[in-house]
Amino acid sequence: MARVSQEHLDARRRQILDGAALCFARNGFHATSMQDVLREVDLSAGAVYRYFSGKEELIAAIVSEVLDEVRAAFEAAAGQTPPPPLDRLVGAVLGRTLTLRENLVLDGQPAFPRLVVQVWSEIPRNDELAAVLREGYTAVRAAWGRLVELYQEDGRMRADVPPDHVARTMIAVVLGFIAQQALFGPAPVDVLRDGLRALMSMTDAGPEA
Amino acid sequence: MARVSQEHLDARRRQILDGAALCFARNGFHATSMQDVLREVDLSAGAVYRYFSGKEELIAAIVSEVLDEVRAAFEAAAGQTPPPPLDRLVGAVLGRTLTLRENLVLDGQPAFPRLVVQVWSEIPRNDELAAVLREGYTAVRAAWGRLVELYQEDGRMRADVPPDHVARTMIAVVLGFIAQQALFGPAPVDVLRDGLRALMSMTDAGPEA
Repeated sequence: MARVSQEHLDARRRQILDGAALCFARNGFHATSMQDVLREVDLSAGAVYRYFSGKEELIAAIVSEVLDEVRAAFEAAAGQTPPPPLDRLVGAVLGRTLTLRENLVLDGQPAFPRLVVQVWSEIPRNDELAAVLREGYTAVRAAWGRLVELYQEDGRMRADVPPDHVARTMIAVVLGFIAQQALFGPAPVDVLRDGLRALMSMTDAGPEA
Repeated sequence: MARVSQEHLDARRRQILDGAALCFARNGFHATSMQDVLREVDLSAGAVYRYFSGKEELIAAIVSEVLDEVRAAFEAAAGQTPPPPLDRLVGAVLGRTLTLRENLVLDGQPAFPRLVVQVWSEIPRNDELAAVLREGYTAVRAAWGRLVELYQEDGRMRADVPPDHVARTMIAVVLGFIAQQALFGPAPVDVLRDGLRALMSMTDAGPEA
């Protein structure tokens, strides 16, 4: 049997994941069959099943990849002294997540935001996928929480707010920005960065507010 | 024919809308039939079709009601002198939106966040619903934009950021907070309010950042 390079294996795996992501973004997870994925990636069943046992494993790999990336980015930021300004950090991490997937295009628009919303809509009826998403969310939320503690210790953020509340708010703004793109078309990440800077410029009413 | 009071008509309309909202939250719009809605509200087809021509009209009414409510709340806030602090306003409007729908329960949890995500996932294949959502979004975004202009005129927010960017960021944080509830269970609105207050307390790096 011919020796196959790791690079070739990785490229093939990438090709399958991207094809499956496009299918799921287009029609949702539920309505997509493995036949659809095979057609999209233009490979034989044997070639695809060598990498993934089925669409459950495909969607889990796609979701985990994104969440691992995002968690790693926030953990790296928490390792910097001092950690980067919040608006710049959010812009950089979201910008990178979107850029890495800009080859995924549907109807002339980025497919990734649509994929995200389709995954969300699947959660109530797919416990396995829900578990993957919850695990990733918990890890990202914890990484955000550590970062917020650093901002608070440095005196860059009021310290009387639970770090987890800030973590959930920051995750919310990113998720909602992605949802807006899925619903109303693409927007530059600078829109979000501007919005966060404007919020940070506001006068906080103080601890009694 | 017996005279039917406006109150009775309104209550019946409400009952149908709530039943349909539960069905759509449970299974999504696509997989819900008018038969499902009739079973849920326990009314005859004649009684329901007197109010709504079909599920397209039902979902449009449900979505429009929420968006009109939210737009009106932000327009009212922009009419106050001075407008309320941003964190308090967001908390109040979102809190009211969720409270008005807390009678809608699925699997022991609030159904409204799940309904929102199901509506989003339907947008790519439902142009009519997409148009309703886009119209409401545009109106809410404009109302937010006017409010941001007031904050900027009052010197409460830096004035070198386009109001529309702040509007989109604020809508993003609310949408994402709702998505988190759909995915990971309910959370008090105070979590979001805390997060916004913490952001507002941060030191902004200034115009050159």
